Amino acid sequence: MTDQKHDRQKLTLGIAGLGVVGHSLVTLLQSQKTAFLAMGADVEIAAVSARDRHKSRQFDLSSIDWIDNPVNLAKTDKINVFVELMGGSDGPALASVETALRHGKHVITANKALLALHGRRLAKLAEDNQVSLRYEAAVAGGVPVIETLRQGTSAAQLLSLSGIVNGTCNYILSRMESAGLSFQQALDEAQQAGYAEVDPTLDINGEDAAHKLTIMAMLAFNADIAYKDISVTGITAIQAGDIKAAKRLGCHIRLLAMAERDENGISLTVAPYLVPAGSLLGDVHGSDNCIILDSRPQGSICLAGPGAGGGPTASAVAADIMALAHGQRGPVYRVYSEHLVTPYLIPPEQKKASFYLRIRIKDETGVVAAVTDILATHNISIDSLHQPSLQKQLGVIDHEEDARLIITTQTALRSDIEQASKVIERQPFTLMPPSIMPILGR
Amino acid sequence: MTDQKHDRQKLTLGIAGLGVVGHSLVTLLQSQKTAFLAMGADVEIAAVSARDRHKSRQFDLSSIDWIDNPVNLAKTDKINVFVELMGGSDGPALASVETALRHGKHVITANKALLALHGRRLAKLAEDNQVSLRYEAAVAGGVPVIETLRQGTSAAQLLSLSGIVNGTCNYILSRMESAGLSFQQALDEAQQAGYAEVDPTLDINGEDAAHKLTIMAMLAFNADIAYKDISVTGITAIQAGDIKAAKRLGCHIRLLAMAERDENGISLTVAPYLVPAGSLLGDVHGSDNCIILDSRPQGSICLAGPGAGGGPTASAVAADIMALAHGQRGPVYRVYSEHLVTPYLIPPEQKKASFYLRIRIKDETGVVAAVTDILATHNISIDSLHQPSLQKQLGVIDHEEDARLIITTQTALRSDIEQASKVIERQPFTLMPPSIMPILGR
Repeated sequence: MTDQKHDRQKLTLGIAGLGVVGHSLVTLLQSQKTAFLAMGADVEIAAVSARDRHKSRQFDLSSIDWIDNPVNLAKTDKINVFVELMGGSDGPALASVETALRHGKHVITANKALLALHGRRLAKLAEDNQVSLRYEAAVAGGVPVIETLRQGTSAAQLLSLSGIVNGTCNYILSRMESAGLSFQQALDEAQQAGYAEVDPTLDINGEDAAHKLTIMAMLAFNADIAYKDISVTGITAIQAGDIKAAKRLGCHIRLLAMAERDENGISLTVAPYLVPAGSLLGDVHGSDNCIILDSRPQGSICLAGPGAGGGPTASAVAADIMALAHGQRGPVYRVYSEHLVTPYLIPPEQKKASFYLRIRIKDETGVVAAVTDILATHNISIDSLHQPSLQKQLGVIDHEEDARLIITTQTALRSDIEQASKVIERQPFTLMPPSIMPILGR
Repeated sequence: MTDQKHDRQKLTLGIAGLGVVGHSLVTLLQSQKTAFLAMGADVEIAAVSARDRHKSRQFDLSSIDWIDNPVNLAKTDKINVFVELMGGSDGPALASVETALRHGKHVITANKALLALHGRRLAKLAEDNQVSLRYEAAVAGGVPVIETLRQGTSAAQLLSLSGIVNGTCNYILSRMESAGLSFQQALDEAQQAGYAEVDPTLDINGEDAAHKLTIMAMLAFNADIAYKDISVTGITAIQAGDIKAAKRLGCHIRLLAMAERDENGISLTVAPYLVPAGSLLGDVHGSDNCIILDSRPQGSICLAGPGAGGGPTASAVAADIMALAHGQRGPVYRVYSEHLVTPYLIPPEQKKASFYLRIRIKDETGVVAAVTDILATHNISIDSLHQPSLQKQLGVIDHEEDARLIITTQTALRSDIEQASKVIERQPFTLMPPSIMPILGR
């Protein structure tokens, strides 16, 4: 059905999943129906699917069909857009999205794991069936990073992308710093405050950020990237002492998702970094997300805002609905799937950076000389070194008995740092394996 | 002509204006033709128009038609998209855009003055002719604020929008602060560095920012806003002493474009503000732009990046070309023009804020008591007061002979501040009319 005056096509939605995001979306669509018409979107929720039909909900589903199996919802003639809000990289989410695309339905999903693992294949399926697969909500919630990568920066050549895309980790790191909490204390608090899941594994081990980086890097570099291509380090090993030492060095610790291109290839990393205070990424506190896109000739663009939560995520899904209503089609990534290229992936150990090292040592003479000697034999020059006695003055040690050595290096190869670290770890004066983190922008 | 596999419509462009942006755009399109095809855009420059046909240019125009009169370019059958890069709110720009829309051509423009003055009428013309009028490049260069307002935040209710949208002013204010320059010295430097026009009037008097605010506020509030609805103050009256005083108060001075909605209506202001250092807007230095959109339920989103220049602006035009190639249509603003509402405009004098006052006075006893008494009789409570002797210690006065009184107030009505200021101005001890600026976020 088409609105003659404005050539407005009616969208009939099938929504699978009525959790926090689904709830916000239904509320939004029901309350905004008239406003949506004025924006050129004639939208109706035709059918829904969720785990428990009889759960009490804050909106009226009486006029909406209920279909128990999401795969059946995905293929019903009642809908022309399938909205997947169930989550999970396989199982019902994958089966229903594939079914919807095969049946010529547009698909909107907030499911980063699904796209990170099956994105290219699903893109081809969508393009072969001449329908859209949209996923603004899959990365950074209400921050429009997907559309900016897909269309807003399409004429520009992306050089690098760096971002804070996991609100749980950023909340934990922020609270470790602001309240002096241990990792476990901050995680407990995040769970109580609703910023971390009951099972936070996917967030704190960096996997969720890596899912999002896979999606963004495929867009940014027109590349076929597998989730396993990314070097991933989570935040579970970060100690209160690292946070304090970083602060003394004028930095915050942030879990960054980084994609960089140079003449050799692409490097993809999710890892904690020391990020200078006063920089855009350093100054992201709490659960917010922030992504910086550096491209030529567009320059460096920063997008920031709430990266999760029902309202922001549902707003992103609604933006995708609006795009479909406005007739927006085109490739699922920036280029059609047959044009995605397989990039050369620069091994993480070949990456250069300045590094932070923190070493727990026995407080005895000759240790500094021994450590600096090990670094020198691995081609690593020292930028700064904070000796135990100095650290005590700075309050970095607190009440711990053993001493710390905090070193920042000049630019060095990751492989050299790692080898040096292994040698340091074997020394009799070393009490724990060293903490190592790259320092952003040095 | 349509690409069968991907339903790709061929776009034939007519580009009017070959200045800095036009030059960047032609270069971009000629170098990216294959990449554009992979993105779903089959784009050809069919014809161009500019002032001087025989000027030496860095790209090959031999295969492209030259049409002297842009109005003739706008209606030729050779094009289906008219790209207006001439500038100017009336004259050839207006005539050619109107002609293109009437002849069923999509229009892409970077012309904020044209849209600020004739936007609603042109939107209706586009919608009546079932073509698009796109203008990503009109505000904040390569920062995708228009598309984010038009579609990315369409389901959200915008509460406020605040931004730095004039790079020239921000460059001047940044340099006054970082290099201790006077306004005139910083302007001279900006002109030499290419950050200010030969005639900088439109920038430094706030008019350019007000043009951009008109466009953004129409999108944000679905409102029919006239450029003259905006209360505009430029930066020409700002003195080196204001910059220094602001710094002592922990703030930077920034020219802000502000649109706010409350239960009574909308307020629209372009004016210099004291903005706290460490905040997103305070920390925008140099010629960058930054816009913060606060909406429900999406939360607060920040978009930042280069706001001008050939590369960023041409990239924004290219994003609009891509949108057309992807079939994206819909309203010119967020809602179709017949749904734009006429808002109640809150008069600027009814706005409340904390204010900064700087008063040049004769250095004599009793002045502070007299000034605080005048403020009190106008219902203004003082938040902080820096007396002349203290200021001398702080280095705010420098080599000037006469004394300064620097006051920050608690929340007060603009009308009260202005009346108090007029009374202070008439006092025998007052040497110059007081500087008054609101303080952001207090």
